[in-house]
Amino acid sequence: MPLPDHVPMSCRFTLSPMSDRFVDIILGAIEKVDTHMVRSKTGKLSTMYEGLRPYVEDGVKACFIHAYRPGVHMTMEAVYSKGWPGEKPEGPEAEEGEAPNAGAVGQVHFPMAAKMSLYVMDGGEWAKGRETLEGLARELGVLEGEEPDCLVLNGDVQQVFDCVEAANRWCAQVFGWYALAATFSVNSPTA
Amino acid sequence: MPLPDHVPMSCRFTLSPMSDRFVDIILGAIEKVDTHMVRSKTGKLSTMYEGLRPYVEDGVKACFIHAYRPGVHMTMEAVYSKGWPGEKPEGPEAEEGEAPNAGAVGQVHFPMAAKMSLYVMDGGEWAKGRETLEGLARELGVLEGEEPDCLVLNGDVQQVFDCVEAANRWCAQVFGWYALAATFSVNSPTA
Repeated sequence: MPLPDHVPMSCRFTLSPMSDRFVDIILGAIEKVDTHMVRSKTGKLSTMYEGLRPYVEDGVKACFIHAYRPGVHMTMEAVYSKGWPGEKPEGPEAEEGEAPNAGAVGQVHFPMAAKMSLYVMDGGEWAKGRETLEGLARELGVLEGEEPDCLVLNGDVQQVFDCVEAANRWCAQVFGWYALAATFSVNSPTA
Repeated sequence: MPLPDHVPMSCRFTLSPMSDRFVDIILGAIEKVDTHMVRSKTGKLSTMYEGLRPYVEDGVKACFIHAYRPGVHMTMEAVYSKGWPGEKPEGPEAEEGEAPNAGAVGQVHFPMAAKMSLYVMDGGEWAKGRETLEGLARELGVLEGEEPDCLVLNGDVQQVFDCVEAANRWCAQVFGWYALAATFSVNSPTA
């Protein structure tokens, strides 16, 4: 039996390292991720991980961290979502166990920035979601700014992903159909 | 008086050229766009254009095309939206007139790919929107694939932007609060 917050969902992400060596960086990162707890499909525009929430999150975070290079500016657009009509997020049968990449990336630290937008499509209370996400980001010490369409985050990579994952955990239990769209950024030359 | 489909909206976009020369490419493109018909704010994570729909679209398309370099892989994440609580898209007073960048970029051609996701937050009919967008993409000859969460587009840069703009024009009139999130990509080494 899956744990109650082990909700099936997906994340579609696009990794963009701004370096002439982008092919090695992207493919190297994707290969390094242990994906045995998710179903993974890579296409021209994005990679999609499907499975239970914690394993999807674990894979996306690991991919970002494996692609990190000191001094190389990189963005990742990552849309965590569930509930699309016609969608059946499928993943491996295993429904419990440790997130397989946590050991490899859980002790890596570097500063990063992010923006995070919440889309609620099932008539659920967006305002309540927004308020909750803002509270989580503030508690975790990563809230840098608020715009009508997004929250701006800043902090250590572990804290920022903690925040996105806490937001997802909450949303996935409260909303039947939602998307949490994040843009992650490291080594931006813009102060 | 603005034309009926000259709806105030915004687009927040992040440009990621995968090249060691990314700073010159991004800043060069942003500087080349004639922004006198929009309000523009550039931050660490994204640039935001606000104004009337056709001028916002014109600016985003021009920025992407000015950043294009033969052989350089590049993505742009662009979220066109309107209706966020607390949002007041503001733009210049001028409400009519030609899109100022159309002349500079309207004759440029290169192949590109895109994905496009529709989020409807005001209780409007997402399914109707999705069907309409699919029809527009098919009519314009750029529909490559359909996923539950997005449409995949492929074609000449002019056709792909025509499709995104037609989608926006329709959505902006039908939905009070929506987002159309597009990821544009050129020169991907993945076949």
